[in-house]
Amino acid sequence: MTGREGGADLAPPGPYDPVVILVRPQLAENIGTTARAMANGGLFHLRIVAPRDGWPQERAWYASSGAHRILDAAEVFDTVDDAIADLHRVFATCPRPRHVVKPVMTARGAAAELRAVSDRKLRSGILFGPERAGLDNEDMARADVLIRYPLNPRFMSLNLAQAVLVMAYEWFLTEDTTPERELMTNETHVATKGELENFMSHLIRDLDDSGFLRNEQKRPGMVRNLRHFFTRGEVTEQELRTLHGVVSELTTGRKARS
Amino acid sequence: MTGREGGADLAPPGPYDPVVILVRPQLAENIGTTARAMANGGLFHLRIVAPRDGWPQERAWYASSGAHRILDAAEVFDTVDDAIADLHRVFATCPRPRHVVKPVMTARGAAAELRAVSDRKLRSGILFGPERAGLDNEDMARADVLIRYPLNPRFMSLNLAQAVLVMAYEWFLTEDTTPERELMTNETHVATKGELENFMSHLIRDLDDSGFLRNEQKRPGMVRNLRHFFTRGEVTEQELRTLHGVVSELTTGRKARS
Repeated sequence: MTGREGGADLAPPGPYDPVVILVRPQLAENIGTTARAMANGGLFHLRIVAPRDGWPQERAWYASSGAHRILDAAEVFDTVDDAIADLHRVFATCPRPRHVVKPVMTARGAAAELRAVSDRKLRSGILFGPERAGLDNEDMARADVLIRYPLNPRFMSLNLAQAVLVMAYEWFLTEDTTPERELMTNETHVATKGELENFMSHLIRDLDDSGFLRNEQKRPGMVRNLRHFFTRGEVTEQELRTLHGVVSELTTGRKARS
Repeated sequence: MTGREGGADLAPPGPYDPVVILVRPQLAENIGTTARAMANGGLFHLRIVAPRDGWPQERAWYASSGAHRILDAAEVFDTVDDAIADLHRVFATCPRPRHVVKPVMTARGAAAELRAVSDRKLRSGILFGPERAGLDNEDMARADVLIRYPLNPRFMSLNLAQAVLVMAYEWFLTEDTTPERELMTNETHVATKGELENFMSHLIRDLDDSGFLRNEQKRPGMVRNLRHFFTRGEVTEQELRTLHGVVSELTTGRKARS
């Protein structure tokens, strides 16, 4: 599932959208793919605490698939305390918190909370730890809430950009209104029952001519089965036009042969 | 958010869990990271249609962060038709379907549908297209349902493993029962109101001794504010022990000085 749309043209950042804070990230590529994941979910504010190999690094821009504006605007800090000083609420992602006493939320629950905090015009941030070790106890002690993703407990290994994508995705969903199911109808429209009935009459007439429905006893059931089949899902006008053609052609062919 | 737990020890595959079908994937690394993303969401069945560089490829195993069993069991097919022949329901992921007339579902809606299909003991599969181009029209014509992720329409670029991760994550959530918010209390317990009251009495007694509450008029309000503060969130027994110590120490220090 690829295909980028105007990577440079990201949505304008909301002043109270969550800040993504990468704590001591190791690889510039991961900072770039993090920016890409943020862009996927409509997040913009990126802060980087003590990047191992310094900042800026060209490889990050290269790995971001066009999410350059996020990297251009990224801020670098020496410590977590500096990075969160102006924030009101801090979340920390950690696969399996230990020896901590803190509220733990799922990604979905945290996204709802982040949205609520944002609606109150408070600034929030999400801490993501270094690639290998994750956040240390000192980092987590600075967070109000821990986030643990519900994922296969036997295989929690998630790379940095994937961890960011899950939160960015859940953040985007908090305001998304896409129906869970809809019929895609580009350049065509769903047929009305009348249009469907026109086709059914056409079909049944030709089937009568062909003798297919000659058994008067079975005829009602056979017709009903056909009706059930053609009403199982929505049919489009375009499909009905095609079906009319199919029936006519088959009929003509039969007549030509006889 | 990293840290792998027993990558080799994946959950046993459910016979009706969805099959992930990579159509004409280009890079072996992406097949490996796809296996990793599948493992994150508890998916196991992987099929590969016409991998550009052939199969097997060592780099896939290297990129899978330990999801080897998924790759070991992966099946390779020449065509999409071969890969889906034994399935009952086929989903296809595509960022923005065009010129198609088909039901389109969100990742979440599709996951619920996949779970329902699985519960009916029917086999389902999800098609993921090649890195650059995505699925072509012929591929999509073979799917019953299209899946389009709700993501930032201005930045849809999603790499293969990320696309697989979103579906694997949603699949996992369909059976996950983690509460959206819980208090993490390793090695300690939430304090009872009685334990909290013991501390409040201790605190108020020492504050009375210190003269901090000497203003009889303001005293009730000040005490009430303290109660509000200490009841804002759950307090643990461990924290109460610490707070008792803090109050006693401060008191002792004060007495020592006077």
